[in-house]
Amino acid sequence: MKPLSPTDQLFLWLEKRQQPMHVGGLQLFSFPHDAPDDYVARLAEQLRQHTHVTPPFDRRLDTRLAQPVWVHDEHLDLEHHFRFEALPSPGRIRELLTFISAEHSHLMDRERPLWEFHLIEGLGERQFAVYIKVHHALVDGISAMRMIQRMLSTDPAQRNMPPIWDLPRRSDPDDCDDSGSSLWRNIAHLLGESGKQLSTVPAVARELLRTINSARKDPTYDSIFHAPPSVLNQKITGSRRFAAQSYGMERIKKVCQAFGVTVNDVVTTMCATALRTYLMNQDTLPQKPLIAMVPVSLRKDDSSEGNQVGVILANLYTDENDASERLRKIHQGIQEAKDRYAKMSSDEIINYTALTLAPAAFNFLTGMAPKWQTFNVVISNVPGPKETSYWNGAKLEGMYPVSIAMDRLALNMTLTSYNDQVEFGLIGCRRTLPSLQRMLDHLEDGLAELEQAAAL
Amino acid sequence: MKPLSPTDQLFLWLEKRQQPMHVGGLQLFSFPHDAPDDYVARLAEQLRQHTHVTPPFDRRLDTRLAQPVWVHDEHLDLEHHFRFEALPSPGRIRELLTFISAEHSHLMDRERPLWEFHLIEGLGERQFAVYIKVHHALVDGISAMRMIQRMLSTDPAQRNMPPIWDLPRRSDPDDCDDSGSSLWRNIAHLLGESGKQLSTVPAVARELLRTINSARKDPTYDSIFHAPPSVLNQKITGSRRFAAQSYGMERIKKVCQAFGVTVNDVVTTMCATALRTYLMNQDTLPQKPLIAMVPVSLRKDDSSEGNQVGVILANLYTDENDASERLRKIHQGIQEAKDRYAKMSSDEIINYTALTLAPAAFNFLTGMAPKWQTFNVVISNVPGPKETSYWNGAKLEGMYPVSIAMDRLALNMTLTSYNDQVEFGLIGCRRTLPSLQRMLDHLEDGLAELEQAAAL
Repeated sequence: MKPLSPTDQLFLWLEKRQQPMHVGGLQLFSFPHDAPDDYVARLAEQLRQHTHVTPPFDRRLDTRLAQPVWVHDEHLDLEHHFRFEALPSPGRIRELLTFISAEHSHLMDRERPLWEFHLIEGLGERQFAVYIKVHHALVDGISAMRMIQRMLSTDPAQRNMPPIWDLPRRSDPDDCDDSGSSLWRNIAHLLGESGKQLSTVPAVARELLRTINSARKDPTYDSIFHAPPSVLNQKITGSRRFAAQSYGMERIKKVCQAFGVTVNDVVTTMCATALRTYLMNQDTLPQKPLIAMVPVSLRKDDSSEGNQVGVILANLYTDENDASERLRKIHQGIQEAKDRYAKMSSDEIINYTALTLAPAAFNFLTGMAPKWQTFNVVISNVPGPKETSYWNGAKLEGMYPVSIAMDRLALNMTLTSYNDQVEFGLIGCRRTLPSLQRMLDHLEDGLAELEQAAAL
Repeated sequence: MKPLSPTDQLFLWLEKRQQPMHVGGLQLFSFPHDAPDDYVARLAEQLRQHTHVTPPFDRRLDTRLAQPVWVHDEHLDLEHHFRFEALPSPGRIRELLTFISAEHSHLMDRERPLWEFHLIEGLGERQFAVYIKVHHALVDGISAMRMIQRMLSTDPAQRNMPPIWDLPRRSDPDDCDDSGSSLWRNIAHLLGESGKQLSTVPAVARELLRTINSARKDPTYDSIFHAPPSVLNQKITGSRRFAAQSYGMERIKKVCQAFGVTVNDVVTTMCATALRTYLMNQDTLPQKPLIAMVPVSLRKDDSSEGNQVGVILANLYTDENDASERLRKIHQGIQEAKDRYAKMSSDEIINYTALTLAPAAFNFLTGMAPKWQTFNVVISNVPGPKETSYWNGAKLEGMYPVSIAMDRLALNMTLTSYNDQVEFGLIGCRRTLPSLQRMLDHLEDGLAELEQAAAL
């Protein structure tokens, strides 16, 4: 028995029918060279033998003394968690993304350990996919990504590799590393710190609103309340659209060299351009530029402790017509934000982060949209494997994060790096953001535009 | 805009994460003789063209003056409702049932019209399946079955037949025929009649409990409080197991002739035997016989009006070791119940039905299990097509109802007749009733046992 942290309780509490709080990861593999045609079915048969389930995947929710706790599930039914599925013909990436969109929309059953592992056959060209879905209360996105990496190997000859739920137990499985903190963990931390108990939610909400209102009048903090209202910041419905694509790191690095900027600047600009084009085509681009919340590492050395993630509000300059100009301004904005952090004390960083997240937190707590918002969209970057990876000889061709869309944050753009690729995973509310998949083309156009400007 | 009836409001209100209130139907088709191998993919392409959606499939929930209403969905996204999917290899009926089990466990998105149409490829032997899922608040099980029948034809040459969501509109689509009433409609009617408003739920619950307690002391009604506690009557979880099979009507009719009983008596005995074997194997068979709630038609002539469905409490004699003896007793019990109804006035029928359902209704309203229950399981029989049916030339090989499992009613056995078959669809809570699919073999054994006893 293990009590849930206040943070993890909040993930359960924030969950609504139209706002599931699970994260996911999609991995695309190719068959080993010598694999038979029924390779995936045989793999499914092998995976079904892994009836041993290691923490935290053996944990289900229970209640003790009115408090939520994790308990070991005595009746774990692997068939519920491990699912062997297939794509309809013609089995293209399009059918895969449709499949993930539908699966990611489904709430999980709280009577059972909050994870699912989908093995998906029916893709063409001797490929298959794995979609892993885990509740954020059980594992956060970064930890999930680490677990997936622990499932993989750089050795294509290695076999008998266990699935994620049967990985060898680590010395302390509860040693959760919070340093790779997500938006949700930050917000939950903020609420948890002020609130401790969910019974005090109205008081916390009042206090947040008071803080927001006084900060808005303070010239020091005025700059963080400039996100314009947009279609991205409406109430959402329960169905999702997932779109994902890989872009070559080499192309991005050439643009970096040409403009003297970082990889993060370029991918942020790609996102900015995609958002600009998408909203322009809908005739809903705000006159004022969109603001993205971008978590960045503030770690200076390995010895630093505590919360090492800063929340940067990146102006996306979606009002700027010229692509290279947009990149330069975004680069400058992010640099200034980092410089500002460098001069801040720990207390100032906490205060600034809290104020940045406060309007969103207020919305989550009360369901009311505050008049002032600090950001329109979340763009986050999760580190992935640096080398070509294999799972039982099957080469990992791509891995795409599937994150969380929420009320007033209808779109989440998460990217990860893998080998020589940058992998984009976009998750959004299907109704609030129709034809979200078009943003993949807009991301490509955004990159091409920069290449053209740099005469590459 | 159309206000929801109090009954339909209750279906929404009774719905919980672990207790979805949708019904479903699974149809198994074979390809037309001249169909190409990619027949199902072509069919999917054709169905995607049916973007016109007729009532009630165009309706989504909304709220007006704090009351739920149906409104026409201006933004209906067919891709959300029509899904083209595939079974994993080897694509047997087993994989199909696993697929339906998982899909039937998912709550639907209340922001959208509450229905889904799944076209499923990947079955062997040139077959495919259709699984239709509709919320009980939108369409009840019997109406859904009628709509499915309207989608079909007895003419194998007929083509250009629309899917269920694009059927020609009838003169009055709101003319819902309640005569084929289900358990849920009966209970909702009972609660709705007493309650009218959900705000009076505690008062209705108190009143129900008072009625139950006084009826238990009344010798006239004492007989309806004899269902023993059993594993079937526990709280359930949110995941389902669906099991389905066809049994030849000719075999069943031969047993009828041999014993001088009805088809309904034989199928009820098959269910009784299956339950007995299943619970005996688990060592959880109650000493006292299980009681099934069996809705039966009380219609004497076509001119009768009002609620024509009686609720029979059928003693399943699961304590009886001899199969033919079990059949005789079940036959006699059902006959006596029918005779009792024949002598009752309308008021007495209403009173008796209300008392039968009262403990279940009390449980639904309060979440508390009353000390006395009137039945352990629901066995219902929904009329199906009498002749071989086709959909765009594809022959309907079988159709299986997928009903609702609820707290304290972990298993629902629904059957339907089609052509020369009796089709069983069992839906149950996957955790409360492990390996539910074994009941299919037990049903077969139950029939074989009767054949043997009759020396057939």
